[in-house]
Amino acid sequence: MLAAIVMGMVLSADAQTVNDEPLNDAWAPSEWGPDDKVGAANRTTPALVLKAVGLVKQGKVATLGKVYAQDAPAFGSRGWRLTIPGLPTGGPFGDQKLVYNDDYVATDIGQIGTQFDGPGHIGVLTSKGSFFYNGRYLEDPDVGAYGLGPLGVEHVAQKGFVCRGVLLDAVALRGGVLPVPKENNRDDPGIITDDDIKQMVKRQRIDSIGEGDCVFLHTGHGDIWHPKDWDEFDAVEKAKRAAEFHAGEPGFGISACEYLASRKVILTGADNWGGEAVGPGFGGETAQPFECHIKLQTKRGIWLIENLDLSQLVADEAYEFLFVWAPLKIKGATGSPGNPIAMY
Amino acid sequence: MLAAIVMGMVLSADAQTVNDEPLNDAWAPSEWGPDDKVGAANRTTPALVLKAVGLVKQGKVATLGKVYAQDAPAFGSRGWRLTIPGLPTGGPFGDQKLVYNDDYVATDIGQIGTQFDGPGHIGVLTSKGSFFYNGRYLEDPDVGAYGLGPLGVEHVAQKGFVCRGVLLDAVALRGGVLPVPKENNRDDPGIITDDDIKQMVKRQRIDSIGEGDCVFLHTGHGDIWHPKDWDEFDAVEKAKRAAEFHAGEPGFGISACEYLASRKVILTGADNWGGEAVGPGFGGETAQPFECHIKLQTKRGIWLIENLDLSQLVADEAYEFLFVWAPLKIKGATGSPGNPIAMY
Amino acid sequence: MLAAIVMGMVLSADAQTVNDEPLNDAWAPSEWGPDDKVGAANRTTPALVLKAVGLVKQGKVATLGKVYAQDAPAFGSRGWRLTIPGLPTGGPFGDQKLVYNDDYVATDIGQIGTQFDGPGHIGVLTSKGSFFYNGRYLEDPDVGAYGLGPLGVEHVAQKGFVCRGVLLDAVALRGGVLPVPKENNRDDPGIITDDDIKQMVKRQRIDSIGEGDCVFLHTGHGDIWHPKDWDEFDAVEKAKRAAEFHAGEPGFGISACEYLASRKVILTGADNWGGEAVGPGFGGETAQPFECHIKLQTKRGIWLIENLDLSQLVADEAYEFLFVWAPLKIKGATGSPGNPIAMY
Amino acid sequence: MLAAIVMGMVLSADAQTVNDEPLNDAWAPSEWGPDDKVGAANRTTPALVLKAVGLVKQGKVATLGKVYAQDAPAFGSRGWRLTIPGLPTGGPFGDQKLVYNDDYVATDIGQIGTQFDGPGHIGVLTSKGSFFYNGRYLEDPDVGAYGLGPLGVEHVAQKGFVCRGVLLDAVALRGGVLPVPKENNRDDPGIITDDDIKQMVKRQRIDSIGEGDCVFLHTGHGDIWHPKDWDEFDAVEKAKRAAEFHAGEPGFGISACEYLASRKVILTGADNWGGEAVGPGFGGETAQPFECHIKLQTKRGIWLIENLDLSQLVADEAYEFLFVWAPLKIKGATGSPGNPIAMY
Repeated sequence: MLAAIVMGMVLSADAQTVNDEPLNDAWAPSEWGPDDKVGAANRTTPALVLKAVGLVKQGKVATLGKVYAQDAPAFGSRGWRLTIPGLPTGGPFGDQKLVYNDDYVATDIGQIGTQFDGPGHIGVLTSKGSFFYNGRYLEDPDVGAYGLGPLGVEHVAQKGFVCRGVLLDAVALRGGVLPVPKENNRDDPGIITDDDIKQMVKRQRIDSIGEGDCVFLHTGHGDIWHPKDWDEFDAVEKAKRAAEFHAGEPGFGISACEYLASRKVILTGADNWGGEAVGPGFGGETAQPFECHIKLQTKRGIWLIENLDLSQLVADEAYEFLFVWAPLKIKGATGSPGNPIAMY
Repeated sequence: MLAAIVMGMVLSADAQTVNDEPLNDAWAPSEWGPDDKVGAANRTTPALVLKAVGLVKQGKVATLGKVYAQDAPAFGSRGWRLTIPGLPTGGPFGDQKLVYNDDYVATDIGQIGTQFDGPGHIGVLTSKGSFFYNGRYLEDPDVGAYGLGPLGVEHVAQKGFVCRGVLLDAVALRGGVLPVPKENNRDDPGIITDDDIKQMVKRQRIDSIGEGDCVFLHTGHGDIWHPKDWDEFDAVEKAKRAAEFHAGEPGFGISACEYLASRKVILTGADNWGGEAVGPGFGGETAQPFECHIKLQTKRGIWLIENLDLSQLVADEAYEFLFVWAPLKIKGATGSPGNPIAMY
Repeated sequence: MLAAIVMGMVLSADAQTVNDEPLNDAWAPSEWGPDDKVGAANRTTPALVLKAVGLVKQGKVATLGKVYAQDAPAFGSRGWRLTIPGLPTGGPFGDQKLVYNDDYVATDIGQIGTQFDGPGHIGVLTSKGSFFYNGRYLEDPDVGAYGLGPLGVEHVAQKGFVCRGVLLDAVALRGGVLPVPKENNRDDPGIITDDDIKQMVKRQRIDSIGEGDCVFLHTGHGDIWHPKDWDEFDAVEKAKRAAEFHAGEPGFGISACEYLASRKVILTGADNWGGEAVGPGFGGETAQPFECHIKLQTKRGIWLIENLDLSQLVADEAYEFLFVWAPLKIKGATGSPGNPIAMY
Repeated sequence: MLAAIVMGMVLSADAQTVNDEPLNDAWAPSEWGPDDKVGAANRTTPALVLKAVGLVKQGKVATLGKVYAQDAPAFGSRGWRLTIPGLPTGGPFGDQKLVYNDDYVATDIGQIGTQFDGPGHIGVLTSKGSFFYNGRYLEDPDVGAYGLGPLGVEHVAQKGFVCRGVLLDAVALRGGVLPVPKENNRDDPGIITDDDIKQMVKRQRIDSIGEGDCVFLHTGHGDIWHPKDWDEFDAVEKAKRAAEFHAGEPGFGISACEYLASRKVILTGADNWGGEAVGPGFGGETAQPFECHIKLQTKRGIWLIENLDLSQLVADEAYEFLFVWAPLKIKGATGSPGNPIAMY
């Protein structure tokens, strides 16, 4: 595999060594059995659904997706391209003189813009192969170049997410947009710790985070991507912003992720590209970049949705809401684009 | 434009003549003003949202999307292709030996499988150009090959759909799967009329269809697409099924569509590819194929979602439910893929 | 259509007016009759082929294509994306344990990097519709969103190009890389005139340009694209270079193009993106950008190949050579990628 | 990896075992040294080029590529899709009212239709990893999901192929289209042996196959793909033909491939999808499917071009000719599309 220089640090690809923690620490089978393909989404119950529905009091609706377009910054070499074949694509037909348009897109569909990380996205190279959620391996005979088989997102997409949504407003907590972390410790203002979460819950006067919740973090970092004046930037300015956006990010530290896992949440989300703190050469409170991804997704089946637009919720101080969304049922995919709905 | 042979009939492309009904009948500006880009989705109010939320009584959740895959029948020359670059796409990185996968897709993203027809999908060739919702034209300077500008789906996607969902079970009404219509009259069993709708509402013991509702039709025709044993079919059998699926379809006749429009619904949907009746050379109750598309979408901004999986709702006799879904915010697109959620 | 800001000038799209020169000046039928789909490639004869073959004296071979990759500057919103599904894509199979890789690409295949402009690429909006080579229109019933029918590149690709290649070294003539033209007159050093061509032929001691020749222009402007140190640039630097590369270009003025047409050449080519001079708001020796494209391609069927790598020919002072190449037979396409061969 | 059912046989993927012949038999470094990325194309010399040029006697030109289109049969799940964005894609611009079209394509560019198999296409799973030409491995740090690094086709594309082309007309030898082999022995009429090659050379009265030659086999099997009446077939008939085309093929047996290797050819080609004999569960004269691919490409760097249109050469009995072609310089790709030129 290619060594990649991303996020301002060298992530050196080293195929010679492995990480056998998933095997030694018995990450598989999951608590939902060896056949499970859904993870923490299993925690949703009719009772929890009804409780979350009870949060809708004003009848307000917010859509949380960002706009998909060619000039949206995309991680690494990912891209988005849309064309309209024909304009119109077909017609005029019949006496009505009907004309119609289609749209043709080529993109890393599940891993660009607002995106959901499903069971097949993040794994760990072990001595037995590339380990993914619930002990499935990329080397398994039912996983291949045209789809991930049992690791495909269509399984959790069949279930969907209906939950109590909790917005954690770290910008309000810190008194401003969070910076990219500079130092790898609990005092860095770009890293949200377990204590920070508890403090935000208290400040925002909401019930504790609990089983079946979906938890979303507002860092302000996401506004580097498409601020209001985005369309006025030229290609060079957009390239600069894209580089800045992906050079690191504030977010959850590992203590926060472990806390959320202990509370049995089913989904985390954020207004930036990875949700967890990433600084120059490290992840939050640890030397390991993306350890939250591994410890929540690969180990526990707690999925993630990135690059959300939380601005309406922040403006309305809608800290608790009914969250309703399902990934697309894309056969064998690692993730899904999305435009989730919050109701409150 | 190309003459197209589709759906068992020749839709002869004829660029010499036009249909000026949109101009003569003053379809623009819409009732929501000349700047509106959203259509009937404007009808949703907090009160209607709260009323729809009240339909959730059991805490049950259904996802209504179908699976996106390469062998799913696609209209005309549309297609779907997914690959996993690299497997893994990247890594191993860091001491955690993280590996990750992406998915690369090329497809008619808004017009394949479960799909939403937005403002830029259906129009009418008039003497002033190709007329679309609210008097916008494909010839306008802000509409082009890389996106439809004000006709793009991102505008209605910003709003989303939260509504009372109504399932009309025509299979129960007719006592079996509806056939492709053979004759273009109100007695053809493949055509659902205004009276049929009223009868289903009565049989199903639900409140009348009303303002802000989203109405879904179960015809059974959609099961030609991916029945339970689909994966056992070879490529030739799948090609036969695809041809059969698209050769015509049962669905709403024009009287039903006009009735739904008069009731001020905001969205229609069905378990097949077009929602409205299409027989050999005609649309339902009219000589004009796809007249419902034009009269609901282009004229009134009542949008459509096709190829839904309504099976769980049918099995549960969930005739009224909270429908929650937003299209993807795809800049300049004609439509969107989707996996809507029904709660009841 | 969208107004486009390209090449440092505003090309204002104006659908209200037309240019009826193709009709008034009787550009159709072509000299090869109304059915012709090939244009000046018709001029090739066995005798000319044998004469061109006679130019191969050293047995040297040069390939003239540039590298296709994601970071190659692309005009407007065009793009290139390649992934390797699976790595390996398939296998291991059988006792041999065969594994194999494919490559999946999404791109504007005929109009990116080294590219051939065929009959369906350039046209003129007239009062009768969009006029293309030999009087075909985009509005014709056999031209559509999935292919250009009789305007498709597969027809000229069936014939191919075998010709005497002539290299015109304008860098040697001017004593350095040609600048983007600043003023629209024959004295601007960025504009190559008819007299400049004659002077280069004389300086380079080759026979006059004649019937069936393929003529290539070396301007040096193409080196902005992928200089030797290209891979060391970051994304922002590449964006700057891409903007500079497309902001204008030195090349043939209209007098040169008319001269080449009068000599009955069959193909022109250059080391930059358009071959003809383009300055701020003008084409070479005229107020009309891309008039050479129209006068050579649309009017006369003399095709064009852009973004060539002429460096080996320049280094070897190979001013005359056997040129051998055929576009890909892409059904209904506007152009083709390529890697032509020069032998000398 | 996925187990694949292709070509009427089960190619069972078995990741547990390996084939260490490439290591034990010292396939690397190649005879051109450990840095070589080009293989047998190194054999071309100016003298051989001049000799091949001498075969052009009539001044005739044939293009050998097939048409790329959506309905062309493609191996496995490969596909081709072309759309024309906008129609026109841009314009009208300036006083000339220029309009232009682009073409947007998504495809397995190097492995569909007429296709070239380069260094990164075929390999062998060994105990050291996936072994490719000259001892490179897919696990190497410079090989990845976005391109194959030193295994990319751009290196051999830089060199190109100029050679004596030899057409072996097996249809003339056998007195008809060759059948898919039924039995795995030298007497099966679908398998071309070393003796068959010598007999064809003699029958066709041409010089022996020798160093630097490019050798092409005419089997007639390729006509299943796009016969003259192809466009009249419907989708189901095309699906049947595609299945038949790929269910097996006549072609070279392993004795023929070893003979060609011993003669030091630099390229082989055929009018079908793989060039070598493939029957139900076996390759020609061996139990190993695609052993010729491995023994010519992976072991020796003798590359392959598939799905050629040899009809003009056959009709003209052009058994010796100047073959001129270069793959596209696609960075990191496994192969290339093509439309080679034969001159005679």
